[in-house]
Amino acid sequence: MKTYLDCIPCFFKLGLKAARLSNADETVQKRVINEIAREVAKFPLTCAPPEMGQFIYSTVRKYTGLLDPYLEIKKKSNETALKLYPQMKRRADSSADPLFTAAKLAVAGNVIDYGIPESVDIEKDILSLLDSDFAASDYEEFTEALKKYNSILYIADNAGEIVFHMILIEEMKKISPDMEITVAVRGAPVINDATMEDAKACGLQDVVKVIQNGDDAPGIILAHCAKEFLDAFTKAGLIISKGQGNFETLNGKEKNIFFLFKAKCSCVAQEAGVQLGDICLVSNRRWLTKA
Amino acid sequence: MKTYLDCIPCFFKLGLKAARLSNADETVQKRVINEIAREVAKFPLTCAPPEMGQFIYSTVRKYTGLLDPYLEIKKKSNETALKLYPQMKRRADSSADPLFTAAKLAVAGNVIDYGIPESVDIEKDILSLLDSDFAASDYEEFTEALKKYNSILYIADNAGEIVFHMILIEEMKKISPDMEITVAVRGAPVINDATMEDAKACGLQDVVKVIQNGDDAPGIILAHCAKEFLDAFTKAGLIISKGQGNFETLNGKEKNIFFLFKAKCSCVAQEAGVQLGDICLVSNRRWLTKA
Repeated sequence: MKTYLDCIPCFFKLGLKAARLSNADETVQKRVINEIAREVAKFPLTCAPPEMGQFIYSTVRKYTGLLDPYLEIKKKSNETALKLYPQMKRRADSSADPLFTAAKLAVAGNVIDYGIPESVDIEKDILSLLDSDFAASDYEEFTEALKKYNSILYIADNAGEIVFHMILIEEMKKISPDMEITVAVRGAPVINDATMEDAKACGLQDVVKVIQNGDDAPGIILAHCAKEFLDAFTKAGLIISKGQGNFETLNGKEKNIFFLFKAKCSCVAQEAGVQLGDICLVSNRRWLTKA
Repeated sequence: MKTYLDCIPCFFKLGLKAARLSNADETVQKRVINEIAREVAKFPLTCAPPEMGQFIYSTVRKYTGLLDPYLEIKKKSNETALKLYPQMKRRADSSADPLFTAAKLAVAGNVIDYGIPESVDIEKDILSLLDSDFAASDYEEFTEALKKYNSILYIADNAGEIVFHMILIEEMKKISPDMEITVAVRGAPVINDATMEDAKACGLQDVVKVIQNGDDAPGIILAHCAKEFLDAFTKAGLIISKGQGNFETLNGKEKNIFFLFKAKCSCVAQEAGVQLGDICLVSNRRWLTKA
């Protein structure tokens, strides 16, 4: 996805939010804004928004010296998700179509985004999301693809919700026991995206192979990724991409990808042809045929 | 008022909105964004937001060649306001405190901002605003000042609503028949701000002396203003300043000013100590004593 002009005001909002979360004073906040402004002036709209995202978060780190302002939030998210896991696992298992419920759970896990400690509210939000339909769905094509391809790369998004991906991965494995699944997390902290530390904290490696992508963009910028990730990306017959940032950077790339995400901004909603707040399970074919 | 860091994302939104209103294509919109970005990188927060506003609108004009994209909107606003005038004049005259009602009408006229032709809806919005109280009010001090000072400069804001200012001006004149009132409009078009053309279209000169400020900022930047305006500003015992842009540029200046405005953005609301959407009639003394 290219950068929409309406993404630009948002870049400054993101920068301010991140700088403030890192306890930057007003002078430092303005320095961050100035750097973003200089970068925006030369940023081509053909780049995906997370390329600017990477610049923004690295600039905030540079000026505040704080490597991982979301560390505590991520820890809490992991704890909350682990607490909710048994209940959500039972809910998927006992549903009419456990794979479908698990796919929805993988998106619904997104509500843990801000690691609110009141798991009761989060539970309510997740259950309400489970009740809503995918606004855009290629679920049948997705199940067919799972039957066809054995080598799967699953690109994770946030800390916390990665716990819920385990439920989907367990359902996928039931389709074909010799399915080879690799989960990719970020190579270094950026916002509340899952890193290897989060995967470890959630016990993801006990269920599936976990690799790092070698980069700290809030999406997948292939040109920045490590060889291990690129090999897995090339080799995979099927890629499951969770989250907005991964969708923004991968839609239209020549690969067999299914995107699972909630449209949390109007530009992404427009790109996906859905409404703000809708959840999607869509095939990359939608963008490949457009091109 | 200094520029808040949260004004910065808004600068880009304003630029996009103005460029789109001028039918700029995406390439031109990005050029406008790039210019704003370069300016933001060197813009000191000590400047008032309308100083950037002036840059934004002049940049849009430069790249689109369109001098006055709001021309039609302003014409419609003037027509709508003139149609509503007799009814609103009666409403003020028949109220318990005509001056107070007229002051509220001067702010309520702001709902004609976008020149929606359905005057029924506008009428409803105006009447609803008349029912609400000033969230911040120095009305008693205002009436005292009107009794005390004979030379008054009234700084107008938008086209259309200038018609309603006539009602307030007529009420003010009842306090002292030899009151000398001058209304100042912008020296050249910027957004939907009133210019001499709008004053003429509304017959403002038949009621009061009208001058131009010699500038096209969406506020009053004294350093840019013409001598005629500066003389009137210096000479005036009392200044009435209508609208957000004039408030943003004049609050805290060493003059006896009363600000009449609706807080249409969260930064101005914060500066005025009110909530978003609140209407205010406040003395500049609030900022002079703070300094």
